[in-house]
Amino acid sequence: MKLNIIPVKWSDEGVLMLDQRLLPTEEKWLTLRTYDAVAAGIKDMVVRGAPAIGVSAAYGIALAARTFVGTNVDDLKDEIEYASDVLAKTRPTAVNLFWAIDRMKRTFDQAQAEGKSVSEIKQVLLDEAKAIHDEDIESQRLIAKFGGELLQDNSTVLTHCNAGALATGGVWGTALGVIRGAVDQGKSVSVIADETRPYLQGARLTAWELMEDDIPVTLITDNMSGHIMKKGGVHAVVVGSDRIAANGDVANKIGTYMVAVLAQRHGIPFYVAAPLSTVDLNCPTGDDIPIEERDRAEVTHVKNNQLAPDGVGVSNYAFDVTPNDLVTAIITEKGVARAPYIESLKKQFDK
Amino acid sequence: MKLNIIPVKWSDEGVLMLDQRLLPTEEKWLTLRTYDAVAAGIKDMVVRGAPAIGVSAAYGIALAARTFVGTNVDDLKDEIEYASDVLAKTRPTAVNLFWAIDRMKRTFDQAQAEGKSVSEIKQVLLDEAKAIHDEDIESQRLIAKFGGELLQDNSTVLTHCNAGALATGGVWGTALGVIRGAVDQGKSVSVIADETRPYLQGARLTAWELMEDDIPVTLITDNMSGHIMKKGGVHAVVVGSDRIAANGDVANKIGTYMVAVLAQRHGIPFYVAAPLSTVDLNCPTGDDIPIEERDRAEVTHVKNNQLAPDGVGVSNYAFDVTPNDLVTAIITEKGVARAPYIESLKKQFDK
Repeated sequence: MKLNIIPVKWSDEGVLMLDQRLLPTEEKWLTLRTYDAVAAGIKDMVVRGAPAIGVSAAYGIALAARTFVGTNVDDLKDEIEYASDVLAKTRPTAVNLFWAIDRMKRTFDQAQAEGKSVSEIKQVLLDEAKAIHDEDIESQRLIAKFGGELLQDNSTVLTHCNAGALATGGVWGTALGVIRGAVDQGKSVSVIADETRPYLQGARLTAWELMEDDIPVTLITDNMSGHIMKKGGVHAVVVGSDRIAANGDVANKIGTYMVAVLAQRHGIPFYVAAPLSTVDLNCPTGDDIPIEERDRAEVTHVKNNQLAPDGVGVSNYAFDVTPNDLVTAIITEKGVARAPYIESLKKQFDK
Repeated sequence: MKLNIIPVKWSDEGVLMLDQRLLPTEEKWLTLRTYDAVAAGIKDMVVRGAPAIGVSAAYGIALAARTFVGTNVDDLKDEIEYASDVLAKTRPTAVNLFWAIDRMKRTFDQAQAEGKSVSEIKQVLLDEAKAIHDEDIESQRLIAKFGGELLQDNSTVLTHCNAGALATGGVWGTALGVIRGAVDQGKSVSVIADETRPYLQGARLTAWELMEDDIPVTLITDNMSGHIMKKGGVHAVVVGSDRIAANGDVANKIGTYMVAVLAQRHGIPFYVAAPLSTVDLNCPTGDDIPIEERDRAEVTHVKNNQLAPDGVGVSNYAFDVTPNDLVTAIITEKGVARAPYIESLKKQFDK
């Protein structure tokens, strides 16, 4: 394993983002010099994945501060508020986005309360964004460690979408972090990757980053996992999450629910790996999680290829909710939570 | 409803096939003048769908007879045998292929036993192929009638792959026949069509033919059906089949099994519509049905667009088996069979 994939970086030029829309056939980095550009990058899925969106939004606010030209702290506060609103409106489901924005705003408020100057606050916000990024990577290292211990040697793990280094601040990933953790612990693990229509994060991103780290991966279409489970070809399922409700209901990429139902039928453990920043204690159940619906063209076209007749009706739900009774365990940087999640998740926040 | 889609036709020029690989963006007919060309058309999926494959193979054998230039009946028999082998090797799962070939060979044997000449046998074989085609359309009309009675007015029906007019001898279809039957009975039915990766029969074919018949259709990716069922958006599932074992296990397009498991979880009836030629009493259970695996490029590419990294491992199972306990009813031209299928299916053959 090279463990060297970091999809979002800070530089003197601005925020650098690996354009994930072009992977795996092209590796191109964009330099985003304004918070508007960062917001567009999140909305247009240059970067995606709940933890990566959180890190990107934090850098976006640091960028809003850096590009602010005044000297009045109250004016800077207005600018930060405005940038926060723009960034918050990019995508509705991943709670890490709102978590990171809130943390940056609290950091601003504290710096203002301490009487810091505009230039000092600019530095404080950049430091905080970098801390969010560093902590995210450290969380993943711990998720990899705790989760890796749950996987068996010589096992085949199915994953859906991309909850890898590309979906996070980098290096390990959450679901793929668990797999990398097991490999790091000397276990032999091979991966079955759902391609994950319509955006194909599994085919384009998960396959790419596992191959980068020399972990064996077999790509399938989303509708094949049931057949392969029935044949005994899957020993565990590991996925990430965009938001986990207080009761352990898990919002994740559309199709996760179907995989979880099939895993239960076949007695296969279904693990969710996510940093605590993904757990939303303000959301009592999965019913309270907003589910993003995206553009019909994602379903009707693959790049310039038209797949369906002009004018056909389309639904394009980007996420679904897996009820907690289908979840074997939730792995965070604080350890492995099991049912009843209403207690075990809350405990992790107190650790 | 126009009820005018017939994907395979006989003409003086040879077998006419609507090239389903080009739908929905182009409607192009191919003229196949030899049985080899018909076999290639089946293998390359110019035509697909179990009943349509059966009809095509029957015409292929009629064509082998027509293009035979000798006058010796034994030589013609050799030619028919050879053509039968070539046609039988095109695709392994759909039993209608073997059923149609066997019926054509029996027709030949009977004609030979009756002392018919080569030119008479050519006509007998063409008549038999046309009879298979006509009977297939009549079977679908009855499937539409019996199945349509099972659907509720103002209901939403989910279907997977294309078991429509395009998958059969034409006009009604099997699963889409049930839907057309309900509409024909004056019911209001809307359809959710799984796109059906990797070959996208749902997006390309089901959406197209339902729009041709003015039946409302909403296209989704295969991984969305669970979420929509959970929201209460599906009242029944209807699919076709490529082979039904004697015990009622159903082989159908990959992903059908997952839909059936989800339907059971949500208390949604799961109907299978197929002519009796799809029922293989020689197959005791679904475990005995061979599952075709197809080329990796179907998964890694959509036309010229590369979706996945070079060299990634790929599985491409074309079918799966849904166990009989997930099947609410099997609708054939003889009526509605329910569990225990080992008895109810056998009874239908005796009707």
